[in-house]
Amino acid sequence: MEAGFVGLGIMGRPMALNLLRAGHRLRVWSRRAESMRPLIDAGAIACDSAAQAAQGAQVVFSMVADAPDVKQVALGERGVADGAARGCVFVDMSTIAPGAARSIAARLAERGIDMLDAPVSGGEAGAISGSLTIMVGGNSNAFERVRPLFECLGKSITLIGDSGAGQVAKACNQVVTGISVAVIAEAFNYARVNGVDGERVREALLGGFAASRILDNHGGRMLARNFKPGFKAWMHQKDLRIVLDEAHRLGIALPAAAATAQLFNAMSGSSLGEDDSIGVLKLYERLSGGVGP
Amino acid sequence: MEAGFVGLGIMGRPMALNLLRAGHRLRVWSRRAESMRPLIDAGAIACDSAAQAAQGAQVVFSMVADAPDVKQVALGERGVADGAARGCVFVDMSTIAPGAARSIAARLAERGIDMLDAPVSGGEAGAISGSLTIMVGGNSNAFERVRPLFECLGKSITLIGDSGAGQVAKACNQVVTGISVAVIAEAFNYARVNGVDGERVREALLGGFAASRILDNHGGRMLARNFKPGFKAWMHQKDLRIVLDEAHRLGIALPAAAATAQLFNAMSGSSLGEDDSIGVLKLYERLSGGVGP
Repeated sequence: MEAGFVGLGIMGRPMALNLLRAGHRLRVWSRRAESMRPLIDAGAIACDSAAQAAQGAQVVFSMVADAPDVKQVALGERGVADGAARGCVFVDMSTIAPGAARSIAARLAERGIDMLDAPVSGGEAGAISGSLTIMVGGNSNAFERVRPLFECLGKSITLIGDSGAGQVAKACNQVVTGISVAVIAEAFNYARVNGVDGERVREALLGGFAASRILDNHGGRMLARNFKPGFKAWMHQKDLRIVLDEAHRLGIALPAAAATAQLFNAMSGSSLGEDDSIGVLKLYERLSGGVGP
Repeated sequence: MEAGFVGLGIMGRPMALNLLRAGHRLRVWSRRAESMRPLIDAGAIACDSAAQAAQGAQVVFSMVADAPDVKQVALGERGVADGAARGCVFVDMSTIAPGAARSIAARLAERGIDMLDAPVSGGEAGAISGSLTIMVGGNSNAFERVRPLFECLGKSITLIGDSGAGQVAKACNQVVTGISVAVIAEAFNYARVNGVDGERVREALLGGFAASRILDNHGGRMLARNFKPGFKAWMHQKDLRIVLDEAHRLGIALPAAAATAQLFNAMSGSSLGEDDSIGVLKLYERLSGGVGP
């Protein structure tokens, strides 16, 4: 397929490479020209704007930092809307507020461009291995057209609902994963201060209702004291801020998410922001019972 | 084996039945005489005290409500210590504070009786099917002697560490499961107010790092609006109080557990205490965006 890809950072670059490797023709653009180099080496066509990346493309992806960036890529000067033909699908895979996604989709619809919000979970490792979880909002016709490309990027691909629903599911995912990481650190720290081996606790809990991928994967890395990201604490902090802002706007109480956001705030404010979010264990250790080994 | 069993409530009764069915000879005692009836019908010997249930037994189990009950059963008038021979193992499967378990174990050791703290996870269903998760604290020699009996009661059986360590692991389990139930309700309610189908969110999240047994089992029951216990909210509230009291005593910060305990407090105070703890979804619905279907 003819596709465009805008935003070639930690996540976007390996995702674009997976599309190229699957045989799709790819036009790429990134604000930082040097980010395009590995893609050009792999056969992508370098462009000088999002508009040019969208020219002749059936699908244009974006993977950028936040809602203003998506808006700029989609609707700004020399943006996707300036280059894309009617019938093109714009697929934003960034994590932004559901309301922002809906608003950009409505503006693009006026120009004859379908938009899917398709944020992902699985981090850099999932992006590299093509095993991301992709949560999609938008119409099912556009979803079906893009599906062959999604299958180059992820393993679990779900059309959640209408425009914005992908971002709602991603918000749920970040709330559940963030709090799960925090509570497992909380439990391991409680065990340590009680003189109990966290690894034995982890094994026992994996045999019952407490079993989870976070306990298995993130819990294992915590106990190995491997705090290398993965997914940085300040990024999880940013995602929770998006959810909490939207919850404020809509009048939804998220007490567990709010409490956990405070922990990620404290990490960012105390030199732990560049750690993986599992570094929240160090914060618990500082709070109580001294610092672990 | 010759065994005694004290405490034949919702959990104790099916556990004792599983020991009988596996061919062990069982002496039983319960404060409420009528609780013994199904066990006597199944071949157990009825006793008139914990001391009598312990006579001639190699292992005596207790499954009661809280630390004062365990202390009474073990060390009170006509308690296990009055009836058990030296070398008998007292196995308390109730959920109590780690410090209380250690203190009772020390008193029994003076009388030549080994104690294991062996709290369980898996609820009434796990007790009936013999598939409990059993977290054990105590010495490995006593653990090995009791293991054949544990294998009649549970599937995942872990010696966590010394005396009290089983209760520490159970505390970790209750913290992780309680908060996981709350955050999944929080996420589903966020989705609902955003007009997004919780079932699609659940499916998508089960494909990624948010996957957990709680999301699968408890999340499924929440969306089916089946709030029948299972594990009652006031029981989870009680378990979190035990953990938070111990955390207060030891100076350990448990912010996520403390926040969640407030939700279970509110459930008990607003007619939801007899619901399964997944009824916390109703609390979220009352807090924001109106009540769901």
